[in-house]
Amino acid sequence: MTTDTLSADALDLIFRDARSFNGWHDKEVTDDQIKAIYELAKMGPTSANQQPARFVWCKSQDAKERLAKHASEGNRDKILTAPVCVIIGYDLDFHEHLPWLFPHADARSWFEGDRDARRESAFRNSALQGAYLMIAARALGLDCGPMSGFDQDGTTREFFADQPNYRADWLCSIGYGDRSTIFDRSPRPEFDRFNRLT
Amino acid sequence: MTTDTLSADALDLIFRDARSFNGWHDKEVTDDQIKAIYELAKMGPTSANQQPARFVWCKSQDAKERLAKHASEGNRDKILTAPVCVIIGYDLDFHEHLPWLFPHADARSWFEGDRDARRESAFRNSALQGAYLMIAARALGLDCGPMSGFDQDGTTREFFADQPNYRADWLCSIGYGDRSTIFDRSPRPEFDRFNRLT
Repeated sequence: MTTDTLSADALDLIFRDARSFNGWHDKEVTDDQIKAIYELAKMGPTSANQQPARFVWCKSQDAKERLAKHASEGNRDKILTAPVCVIIGYDLDFHEHLPWLFPHADARSWFEGDRDARRESAFRNSALQGAYLMIAARALGLDCGPMSGFDQDGTTREFFADQPNYRADWLCSIGYGDRSTIFDRSPRPEFDRFNRLT
Repeated sequence: MTTDTLSADALDLIFRDARSFNGWHDKEVTDDQIKAIYELAKMGPTSANQQPARFVWCKSQDAKERLAKHASEGNRDKILTAPVCVIIGYDLDFHEHLPWLFPHADARSWFEGDRDARRESAFRNSALQGAYLMIAARALGLDCGPMSGFDQDGTTREFFADQPNYRADWLCSIGYGDRSTIFDRSPRPEFDRFNRLT
């Protein structure tokens, strides 16, 4: 590693100038780009390296239509017009993979028989992974449009019928955002409002 | 914005070479650094700009000791020896802030009277915010050590007694990680294992 901090331009790209998009330029996101996003996102930390997220990248017209029919009306076009829309799901049985994902402790036994603990950990850590994925996409020159207005159960049945322990949790369209379609950024809180330094 | 993608060095810094730390160099994290982390992290997207995360930055010896007593035995030193340890909490009544955080729709009404929906949204979106916070800390040259082994209820009572709708969710030590204290990185999955491209 030869840099200690990100440049101002880099911070702009992934945080300060980045926006959530609903409108997209007609420009493909390649399979290689999708895999490059994942290769970065998977490096982010999860508790005991659980990696509970399960991603379905809907890129074909057919897949996007199958997904859009479970979305709220306002979100359908945000899926159909995007180059790709990824379902961020999680595996309630992620612990079965811990023997190889976290080989230096018997982490599987921490979750065996405790479905509530698995659900909480899968939910929290797959959300972290989805955040890494969005930052990774931005870092690679793409834009994101995350969404939670959709039928989770219907989407779970539609896409995870073969994986009864997977759950669909939220969605994120990815592509090249059309800046002419967005409004001013919503306000951000001052430090003192939601932070305490003690 | 004058850059379209992050450099390889920048990607190494925030994803590929970054590691979770338990051991810390004896070097302060300043209040200004803490505020700079938040100024970046708050720019990340949350659903309807909910910003449900509530952060308590434990920097004084007294605050770290109050927190460490609620941690699992293996996590106590990871809190006490770190320059700062932040509690990532969330506000179950985040919706009360939506009139100013999301002024262009009546988003408060979507959550009024539905505590389960608020809990799910606060949990998911505060996790996203915690992920942004970790990436922001790394981007500013710091290291992170996230933890979930602690008593959430006890910590909630200890730090949020004055805010009955806040909940402590997870912890993250922040400082300058000591690379001599870490082992090899745990394995990361190949794309095909946990992804489907359709």
